[in-house]
Amino acid sequence: MGTYRALTIAGSDSGGGAGIQADLKTFQELDVYGMSVLTALTAQNTLGVQDVLPIPPEFVAKQIDSVLSDIGVDAIKTGMLFNRPIIETVVEKIKQYEIKNLVVDPVMIAKGGAPLLLEEAIAAVRVHLLPIAEVVTPNIPEAEVLTGLTITNVEQMKEAARILHGWGAQHVVVKGGHGGGAEVTDILFDGSAFVEFTGTRIETQHTHGTGCTFAAAIAAGLAARKTVREAVEQAKAFITAAISDTLGIGSGHGPTNHWAYKRRRNLQDMESR
Amino acid sequence: MGTYRALTIAGSDSGGGAGIQADLKTFQELDVYGMSVLTALTAQNTLGVQDVLPIPPEFVAKQIDSVLSDIGVDAIKTGMLFNRPIIETVVEKIKQYEIKNLVVDPVMIAKGGAPLLLEEAIAAVRVHLLPIAEVVTPNIPEAEVLTGLTITNVEQMKEAARILHGWGAQHVVVKGGHGGGAEVTDILFDGSAFVEFTGTRIETQHTHGTGCTFAAAIAAGLAARKTVREAVEQAKAFITAAISDTLGIGSGHGPTNHWAYKRRRNLQDMESR
Repeated sequence: MGTYRALTIAGSDSGGGAGIQADLKTFQELDVYGMSVLTALTAQNTLGVQDVLPIPPEFVAKQIDSVLSDIGVDAIKTGMLFNRPIIETVVEKIKQYEIKNLVVDPVMIAKGGAPLLLEEAIAAVRVHLLPIAEVVTPNIPEAEVLTGLTITNVEQMKEAARILHGWGAQHVVVKGGHGGGAEVTDILFDGSAFVEFTGTRIETQHTHGTGCTFAAAIAAGLAARKTVREAVEQAKAFITAAISDTLGIGSGHGPTNHWAYKRRRNLQDMESR
Repeated sequence: MGTYRALTIAGSDSGGGAGIQADLKTFQELDVYGMSVLTALTAQNTLGVQDVLPIPPEFVAKQIDSVLSDIGVDAIKTGMLFNRPIIETVVEKIKQYEIKNLVVDPVMIAKGGAPLLLEEAIAAVRVHLLPIAEVVTPNIPEAEVLTGLTITNVEQMKEAARILHGWGAQHVVVKGGHGGGAEVTDILFDGSAFVEFTGTRIETQHTHGTGCTFAAAIAAGLAARKTVREAVEQAKAFITAAISDTLGIGSGHGPTNHWAYKRRRNLQDMESR
């Protein structure tokens, strides 16, 4: 039948803009069958995270077994894995089922999570998760926390990418959205060469779920047999459209527009007829 | 901005074919911004439900508060509410926020749930949930359990609809899919007149999540300011396309195709140019 399948292992955002909700919408829009394993639930909206409920690691494992023992996947994306036991559980299962197309969005801890978890969760990402990642997608603050570098320019982003690649990630995307300036540069590193993606910064407060959506779009591309570079390029186009076409949801930092990419493509298709 | 918003309050299906996953896909395809409040998680695939983890009622309430205090909704769909305390919590919150467009899919208990919960959950649906429902969408077994009737023909479906309307649901859809015969008849009752929707039965084992998807499609229609009858008609077309165009996911009872409705419409649009 040729239906590509992608799984997100991440937290739930009740407000629908981030987490597994953003991932499922992205998979759906990119014509990939979406599944989800929950690691934590949040009570959340565009103003913030009001509460978090972690899921027991054993139940995370059971969800993964249910999906992978029957349906199978063409790619997996991990998002908020919340704590060290969940990270270790997910890593063990991904190894057990020999998953190659793993996209790691290194969200190390929920907002409001206990600081004590932070250090050991960072170590678990570095030691266990990065070595099995096909692609890892830190933003600048995440790259700084993981590597210990201070990052203020593209050269330092490249240095961080080299370090993360050295720890085992096959491809590293460092996202420049948190940097300053009128332009945003993301970089992709495959261990030998760098590709830079530069675009105009879009002024908006509606960027909630951007990181989730971008990583999910890469996973959808890999699931559909694209190369990493093709998948990252498509994901850049997807997230640029999603940030540009604001929905106006909520009174705070609103979600991105998951319809925008496909709508733009359909419009282009019609105009080229 | 005019983005319509719908919320599903239901369980999670890790396999992506039912529960909030089916609902979010349906909202997305029908151009309605989707949000979700989780009542229970399942470890589930196309072969069955391997495990269930209920969410504490207090955390269900917190998720609802996060969504409704900031983002708001144009319609809510409820699915698996799992047990009496969760049902009562959801009812209280829906009353508190004065939600009018409530679609109730009366899934009273998870597969594998304790039988003891069943009786009191049925009573809670009847006494608390139906009186605030704009639309309730039982299949034949659910209508039988709720009303105590035995249903083998359309006349008996209508009798059940009258009883459910009498208990307070503004509109009742009894779905005939579980009946026999080469044709399937669903009925819609608004308290005064019946509308029958009859179609050819589609022979397939890939009907997992049909009930969730149908109710979510009705909620999406109501969110987009359709009348109940228009929303039900659109939902019938949506689910018929979703069941017809099999995806071939999993080795058991696979999910329906949430892309099919929009793809068919796009094809018609192109042909009519």
